[in-house]
Amino acid sequence: MGKAKKKDKHFKPWQAPGSVGLVETRSFRFGEPPDEMPLDSGLKLGPITLAYETYGKLNAERGNAVLICHALSGDAHAAGYNSPTDRKPGWWDYMIGPGKPFDTEKYFVICSNIIGGCKGSTGPWSVNPRTGAPYGLEFPVLTIGDMARAQRELVAHLGITRLLNVVGGSMGGMQALQWAMAYPESVASATLIASAAKLSAQGIAFDAVGRRAIMMDPAWKNGQYYGGPGPDPGLALARMTAHITYLSEESLHQKFGRRLQNGERFGYSFTNEFQVESYLDHQGEVFIRRFDANSYLYITKAMDYFDLTQGGAMTLAQALSGVNSRFLVISFSSDWLYPPEESKEIVRALKMNSADVAYCEIKSDLGHDSFLLPCPLQEQMITNFLAANLKS
Amino acid sequence: MGKAKKKDKHFKPWQAPGSVGLVETRSFRFGEPPDEMPLDSGLKLGPITLAYETYGKLNAERGNAVLICHALSGDAHAAGYNSPTDRKPGWWDYMIGPGKPFDTEKYFVICSNIIGGCKGSTGPWSVNPRTGAPYGLEFPVLTIGDMARAQRELVAHLGITRLLNVVGGSMGGMQALQWAMAYPESVASATLIASAAKLSAQGIAFDAVGRRAIMMDPAWKNGQYYGGPGPDPGLALARMTAHITYLSEESLHQKFGRRLQNGERFGYSFTNEFQVESYLDHQGEVFIRRFDANSYLYITKAMDYFDLTQGGAMTLAQALSGVNSRFLVISFSSDWLYPPEESKEIVRALKMNSADVAYCEIKSDLGHDSFLLPCPLQEQMITNFLAANLKS
Repeated sequence: MGKAKKKDKHFKPWQAPGSVGLVETRSFRFGEPPDEMPLDSGLKLGPITLAYETYGKLNAERGNAVLICHALSGDAHAAGYNSPTDRKPGWWDYMIGPGKPFDTEKYFVICSNIIGGCKGSTGPWSVNPRTGAPYGLEFPVLTIGDMARAQRELVAHLGITRLLNVVGGSMGGMQALQWAMAYPESVASATLIASAAKLSAQGIAFDAVGRRAIMMDPAWKNGQYYGGPGPDPGLALARMTAHITYLSEESLHQKFGRRLQNGERFGYSFTNEFQVESYLDHQGEVFIRRFDANSYLYITKAMDYFDLTQGGAMTLAQALSGVNSRFLVISFSSDWLYPPEESKEIVRALKMNSADVAYCEIKSDLGHDSFLLPCPLQEQMITNFLAANLKS
Repeated sequence: MGKAKKKDKHFKPWQAPGSVGLVETRSFRFGEPPDEMPLDSGLKLGPITLAYETYGKLNAERGNAVLICHALSGDAHAAGYNSPTDRKPGWWDYMIGPGKPFDTEKYFVICSNIIGGCKGSTGPWSVNPRTGAPYGLEFPVLTIGDMARAQRELVAHLGITRLLNVVGGSMGGMQALQWAMAYPESVASATLIASAAKLSAQGIAFDAVGRRAIMMDPAWKNGQYYGGPGPDPGLALARMTAHITYLSEESLHQKFGRRLQNGERFGYSFTNEFQVESYLDHQGEVFIRRFDANSYLYITKAMDYFDLTQGGAMTLAQALSGVNSRFLVISFSSDWLYPPEESKEIVRALKMNSADVAYCEIKSDLGHDSFLLPCPLQEQMITNFLAANLKS
């Protein structure tokens, strides 16, 4: 039926059952000088704009709010369509809407673009009020803690003191964990998907080569490229390399194998020949149209810094000793960037604190990106977890 | 005793027991026009110079010759010292010498730099006799088959019709397998370490981003950088990314973890902070001093092309139906670039042909690079395999 409808040129996807419909990205501004927001670095940032979207309605008890935290390249537009001409819905549309796991008939769903991002929230591309020009590298280096701190201002602004659920995959899971640790009274439950309590050495290494690709691009100009051409080749390369880590060898094998782009014979040249090369190329091309290179630097740096044990100053169990939330932790078997072992480490530390935690490793060939893809098991677990938390 | 000796400033490592001593890299030239060597692409290449070294003596029966095939960044200098001032011996020195697995008291060991390489053998940096200038991208795209074909000329030149053993790790293993398939009567035994019968889709993807790093460097100049500064930042980045794939998350965790370079506090800047970043940086820096960027392009392309099934035109068992060698196949448990499964695929195909094959997956945390590192189990297996083949 879905396919038949799509062929109908009068079909309006935002009117389809299950869609949150046409949605508007709004802005929340706070931290006006002299009340700038303090950062983990000791610096301050303000004013800050957060771009955000909400779906569904806050109930009278203000107890049905769900905060969705996005991953590296996500944005506030998690569901629905911003305009009737949009071809694609928000990045987690299959999860959010009437009758979907984040059921907008039941929950008030919030998603905001992180600070440091480039999709409406204050980031290195924003105008530095001190200079009147884009920050570039004068933007302060941020942490996952800073991202959560800014989100908390938005949540308070929306009149919510306790979130029913904070949820995220990958770096979004880091934010959700940060919320549960830093603001235990504000988080009834947290859902951590394909995530970790710290970025691994290998993760730092991949982030480092990504940043280097951007910074070696002559058009990067030490971050001062706004108003002219940006470091597109460098950003594309960073994305292409990272994209390999989001998939698995098995999924690359199944999707592309060693198939050639054109015909059966090698071209004996340095143009793209294998389908997997063209695919990566395309990923890079699409990315540079929608992402800012400096934001990429800042966000990956924040991920590198993330480590709840503060460099081993305490155990993870000690770091999480104050949590006061229920947890659902999900990992994917073929995820080698945030492998299941990293999720299990969180589960062990939570159990050491007698926290209420459910864990599931989902068998999947699709690697780290599994969390973004339709997966009935993940959908059902999130549906049930939210329902149980709403009741209690 | 070894340590005490090293502290003695009169200690001469090339005189130490077990060293092959001072060795000379020699050159073999062939394929003079009009007798250029045919290539898999249909083109021809000539004249060709191969840089090579030999250790030990060919016996009267000419039956004790071992050909060592190097990996991507290797060279002809596998053992000993080229000069008394050399600080480091050849790249597989711990494996080659009196009393070592490739015992130079028993075997005549040959190692040559591959064609397309940059350590004395003809490659894109060489002068194109047609133009009098370095080939650059006018150099023909090569295959693993072409590399073996050139080595075969050298082996014949040395008076050897049948090799006791052809051995290699990684791309060296591809060459050894190619030898066994293409020249079955010339190979008594083959040792394939951390290798594969084809490069995986993920392997192609990582090669593609490496080449892209080089080609986006403005100093690359479409390959015409000889005589001026080369694309060092691009080549360094290619190496850094590849280097991550040569290790394992476990080894990165053990070696560096999340330790910072200086002190315990974050710097909140974009300089290298984590030890793993500085380590990768160093790997890049060292590499650009010893490697040619165009060679990197050509060699990775040859790896991409490697596929004994010719794109699935036949099964691997069919491709290997003519082999007439004994095989030793070794893989390493934590190698995710050439995972054990790829070695097992070779073993299965050889067994389908009733070939004499021994297989061992060695438990190691050190990833793909395990084959280059001291490993008693690997040493013993190679020692025994060579001895058994010499007897028979």
